[in-house]
Parts: sequence; C-alpha cells; structure tokens
Amino acid sequence: MPPAGPLITLLTDFGDRDWFVASMKGVILSIHPEARLVDLSHQVTPHQIHDAAYLLKSCYRYFPDGTIHVSVVDPGVGGARRPLLMSTSRYHFLAPDNGLLTYVMEEEERVEIRHIENRRYRLEAEGATFDGRDLFAPAAAQLAKGEPAASFGPLIGDPIRLDLQGPLRQNQRVVGRIVYVDRFGNLISNITAKQVRECLTAGRSLTIRVGDRVIDGLVGSYSEGSSERPHALINSNGYVEIFLKEGSAAERFGVRPGAAVDCSAA
Amino acid sequence: MPPAGPLITLLTDFGDRDWFVASMKGVILSIHPEARLVDLSHQVTPHQIHDAAYLLKSCYRYFPDGTIHVSVVDPGVGGARRPLLMSTSRYHFLAPDNGLLTYVMEEEERVEIRHIENRRYRLEAEGATFDGRDLFAPAAAQLAKGEPAASFGPLIGDPIRLDLQGPLRQNQRVVGRIVYVDRFGNLISNITAKQVRECLTAGRSLTIRVGDRVIDGLVGSYSEGSSERPHALINSNGYVEIFLKEGSAAERFGVRPGAAVDCSAA
Amino acid sequence: MPPAGPLITLLTDFGDRDWFVASMKGVILSIHPEARLVDLSHQVTPHQIHDAAYLLKSCYRYFPDGTIHVSVVDPGVGGARRPLLMSTSRYHFLAPDNGLLTYVMEEEERVEIRHIENRRYRLEAEGATFDGRDLFAPAAAQLAKGEPAASFGPLIGDPIRLDLQGPLRQNQRVVGRIVYVDRFGNLISNITAKQVRECLTAGRSLTIRVGDRVIDGLVGSYSEGSSERPHALINSNGYVEIFLKEGSAAERFGVRPGAAVDCSAA
Repeated sequence: MPPAGPLITLLTDFGDRDWFVASMKGVILSIHPEARLVDLSHQVTPHQIHDAAYLLKSCYRYFPDGTIHVSVVDPGVGGARRPLLMSTSRYHFLAPDNGLLTYVMEEEERVEIRHIENRRYRLEAEGATFDGRDLFAPAAAQLAKGEPAASFGPLIGDPIRLDLQGPLRQNQRVVGRIVYVDRFGNLISNITAKQVRECLTAGRSLTIRVGDRVIDGLVGSYSEGSSERPHALINSNGYVEIFLKEGSAAERFGVRPGAAVDCSAA
Repeated sequence: MPPAGPLITLLTDFGDRDWFVASMKGVILSIHPEARLVDLSHQVTPHQIHDAAYLLKSCYRYFPDGTIHVSVVDPGVGGARRPLLMSTSRYHFLAPDNGLLTYVMEEEERVEIRHIENRRYRLEAEGATFDGRDLFAPAAAQLAKGEPAASFGPLIGDPIRLDLQGPLRQNQRVVGRIVYVDRFGNLISNITAKQVRECLTAGRSLTIRVGDRVIDGLVGSYSEGSSERPHALINSNGYVEIFLKEGSAAERFGVRPGAAVDCSAA
Repeated sequence: MPPAGPLITLLTDFGDRDWFVASMKGVILSIHPEARLVDLSHQVTPHQIHDAAYLLKSCYRYFPDGTIHVSVVDPGVGGARRPLLMSTSRYHFLAPDNGLLTYVMEEEERVEIRHIENRRYRLEAEGATFDGRDLFAPAAAQLAKGEPAASFGPLIGDPIRLDLQGPLRQNQRVVGRIVYVDRFGNLISNITAKQVRECLTAGRSLTIRVGDRVIDGLVGSYSEGSSERPHALINSNGYVEIFLKEGSAAERFGVRPGAAVDCSAA
C-alpha cells in the first residue's frame, strides 16, 4: 500500500448546514489533492473560543505525527487579530490569535508560534474576509505540500491566551469549576485525577459539591449508580466529571459551565 | 491508481459536537494511516441500541467486501458487558455485546462471534472507560492492518440479542409495528413486501391501519398522494412505510416506534 | 505520493441521522474503491430545492477540476422527473431535473446536459425508489471510473430552471431580496458588489433597507459595528449581506428569505 497523504483536521463553528466547511475542503484539495481531511467538529457554539480550545485539547494528541490541525472559531475575522501557525514536535496548528490555542500551549513543552504574514498563498475574494477558506485552508494545504513553517511569517512571543483559572488546592480540598458540558449533558470539571488523589490521604473519603448537590465518592464508569442522582467519576481524559446515569446532568441539575466544583476529603 | 486502503465505518451515539468521534479517528489513523473512514451516523439517540442496530442493518451490505463496521452505542461501557468482534463472509463488525448486532445476525447465514479478550491493543487511559477510543478503535485499526480475527479472543455462542418481535401473519392479515422513524418523519414498519404479497390473493385489496388512521392500498413513490393524509409504500429496503407527502407522518399523526401496524386484505 | 482518486461531493437533504448518506457512500465505494468523498451538506431543509441550489453555487468552484458533484434534494423521486448529468469544462453534476442546477447553469458559460436514460448501472431494489443510492451513486462512481458522459443518455435542451428573480436596478437604486439565511442568521441578498458600486456615483452614500430596518453604508468585516443593530457588508462570495455582530440578524429582526432588500444612494 502506498504511503497515505498528509492529514489535516478541521475544527470550526461553521456548522454543517451551509457551504463554509465544504469551501475550505475544496480549497485544500485543489492545492493538495492527496491531503486527507478529518472533521474534529463544526458544531462549536458560534464564537465560543473556549469550547473550541477545550475540544482541540481533548483530541489533538490522538492524531498521527505530522497532522495539521486547522481551527477556525474567529469572531474577530477581518479585524486586527493575527492568523497564527503554531508548531510542536509532532503537529502544526493553524488558528486565529484569539486564545483558541491556549490549552495546547499549556500542554506542550515547546511551541514555535508564527504570525502568518506571507500573503502569497491567500485566495483573492471580493468582499468580507472568510479567512477559513481564503487564508487558513491554503496555508494548511501548502504546509501539507512541504512548505516550511518559517516561510509563513516571523516568530512571535505574545500570543493571546485565555485566562483558564485553574483549580485551587487547600490542604484536603480542591475547588475548580465546570469547563465543558458535552453532548450527553455530562459536566466536565478542570480538576484532575492527580489533584483528587493528593487530597485523599489514608482513611479519608471524598465529597464533591456542585450546584446544590452533594456527591459521595467516585464511581468507576457511567453504568454504575442510579439515574436519580448525580455521580462522579474520573473521565477518559483524566478529569473529574459529574454525570447522571443515562440522562443529562446539566439539564436535570441546572448546572452550566463556570459552576464551582468543590472536592473535599474528610 | 494504487489500491485503496481498507474501509472502516463508524456508527455511534456520540454526536458531532464534541471530540469523541475525532478521538476514535485519530487513534485509527495513528495505528493504520492508510485506513479510510466513513461515518454511518453519530446521531443515534443516546443509548438507543435498537435504533443503532436498525441503522446498521439498513446500510452495512452496501459497503465493499472487507469493510470493518465499528458500532459504539454502549450505555454499559465500563461494566461487565463484553466487547465483540463478529465476522461474516464479507465483513467484520465490532460492537459491545448489548444487542447492537441483532439484526445483522438475523440477516447473515454464518457469523463467527468472538469476545475481544486480548488487551494488548487497548490504549491506556487514566479514568473511566472510553472503549470507542481505547478498545474498538485500536481493534478496528489492527484488523485493518491484517491481524487475524482469531487473535482477538475466543469464539462465543451466546451474544445478547434484542427481542425483535417480528410481525404476526394470520390468513389475509399481518400485524407488525413501527420500528424506526426517519429524519423525514416517515414511519418504517417491520412488515416486508413479501408478507404483504402473501396476504393479497387475487381480487383483494389492501388496508393498512396505524394509530387511528386507515390507509387504502400502496402507492409507488413519495411523490404520489396528497399532503393531507398518510400514504403507504414499500420502501427502498423492502418494508411497508407510512409517509405524509412533503411532511412528517410521525408528527402529524402522533405515531411513535412500537405502534401497531395492521395490514389486511379484503 | 501516488495520484489521488477522483473526488465526488455529496449534497442532500437526507440529514446525518439515518442510513441514507452512508448507503450512497457504500454504493460508490463498492463500485470505485479509490473514490474520495466530500460532504457538501446533508442538512438542507427537506425538499428545499432552492437552498440546495444556492449552496451548490456557493462552493462548487472551489473543488479541483474533474470533481463530480452529486446533489439529491428530490421531492419528486419516483415520479416523472428526469435524472440529469450536467458537464462543464471543469466538473460533472448529477442531480434530479427540478431546478437544483439553476444557479450553476447561470454561472457557467457552456454546459452539456444529459438525461440519464441508461439503466445499466441502476441498482435493483424492491420498493420505492431511492435514486440517491440506486441511480445517482452508481452513476457518479461509473463516471469516476471513466465511463464517458455520452454513455449515460442523450443531450437535452429543456432542463427545469428555478425563477431566480434577480435584482432590479433603477438609477441610483437596486432592489433585490434575501435569498439565503446561513447558520449564523446572516441574511444573504442577491445584490452583488458590482451592482452596489454602479449605484454609488461620486459623493453619494449608501442606504440599505430590509424589513423595518435602515442601515447606513457598508462595513468591512463581521467584527465591526455594534451588536445592537444590523450592519451590512459585501460577503466572501461578493453579495450584500446583513448581519448582527455576534448574533442572528434573522432572529432579531424577523427577516426571512424572500424579504426585499433596497439599496439606494443619495
């Protein structure tokens, strides 16, 4: 079997109803027909940069080395915000400079971030900017064809970062917050399994408070517990997550992103 | 043109908003970059095993020989339910042992079903199980790379089957039920064209009852009839289907899956 | 890297929940395993031929030469409407003869339109027609394999066209209408940048009226203006578009497709 073409993933808030994503794909495949495209998601709530950033963090590392991750949630398109190319030892990331890459910057030890100033590859279009199609798609395709990162523009040291407000630890207690609600209504916190373990010294048991609910301890999987009250587990990405068995915890308990999550051991 | 890489289809209830499906794709492509992925659907109603089973039945046979069909609607993930690899003369199927493969088992003459016990390919993850990403995706990729089915685990003879409650035939009458409502609101029954033909001896005409509606005879296509009352036809998979021209029969007539459908000839 | 297989795009109103699109893909890949599939959209509102036609117009030209565009929004399936194969210098288009190709016909200088009469490639199915799977998918795959267009059927000169009702220009005024509302609630008109420029002689300024709103002039991008009142710009396809910053203009101002848009210079 011949070697597979380079992988390009796409993450946007463009939805799947109109022609926006298809236009990006057409542009990429016109420049580099061997590219292979994978959709991360196009259902990010419009303009929700944080959700896109979290989504990217949650799956980018599962892709093969050399994958080019293109993320376009870009309320400032056409304004002064810079288009970025960020490179790590394994991946390239293309995104507007609005914080979308914050989580990846946090996870990666070494990143090189460039301001895409080179206008050579930009598609000409008459009206308002559609940088997904006219700038990011051609840049991704040219990168995939072998254009070196350095040719896209100069290194920068001041990318915009979201203020992630990590959890606070205090002896036997860690207080974080809900950072993402998934399709099932599961409430994903920013508290890690490691932080929970550090609270729990021998003989103590864990209590989790979220909204007006109190949850005793962790279960091992979504199939445990009742469908009447919330349970908590360490999810598949290593975070404390509150769920309702075969239901939506977000809906049932009225909890939204930003809500405090308090884990304490006693 | 070089030979195309192996096909892997994905069917889940993960939706298209979060990172779940993308994570599975990343894992597969990391193990076997030449694999080609096709989405069957990720919009199965969460935890609706029957709908997923019906969806799989309705399209799996259109794929080329050798296709690997991965289906993950898995409310019992992390519990005792077994992960399965089922092989037929043409395909492999990977799914949890919860009835999801029932229809395919019914349609196929010979199946070999294995309990995936081999943990070698399983991805390590800290928290609660995400078997779609950590077990089924790597198993599919290894199968696609040529790993023999026998290496995944022992044959079993007792897979879980849904109770499908086929239609009952009584002389000139067959009573079935609505088993699926599609995106258009069409009501798909489990009564086949053949069963209808067997009711209809010479000179008789067909009457179909569903909910409080009575439908006289069958039409040949969706473009026939009025948009005021329901019509019935033999659908493209060979089943009796009730529809409303350019509207939703399910909404208009308040009929849901499970509703009785009575075909009689008089 | 080996040459990439032929591209086939799919545009339907089948949604992404059921097995309809997957069935088409399976059929295509069974006939021509090297084909590469790109979804334009499957979320066209059921039976909305105009929206599908507009969507196709808005992205088809971004795809590489030789791409086969398959569009199936087909309320008349099974009736007398003809299946068409339309060829331009760069592309093939497969669609029912119901106006779906109207915009493309308008944009392309030379088109050859054939009635697909050849039944050789049609899949046999028991019941009501599913031409997406049984006719258009195999035709696309055979075209991709190299079957010449002429073998599908005779040229025709009378395809059905939608009545597009282009904008009317009168001195310093052009009156068009909203033709599409996108996922963000942006209101896309059929008035082009060129038509606006022709209104604007030296020293005049532009006023746009839509619904009960009056908009002064154009802005350059979605990031300009306030989120309290509508703004207008020339969008990335060259049309006048009314938007609400980080909100839905369609919802906020109650404007729907068909609404008049009046651009005047004074």
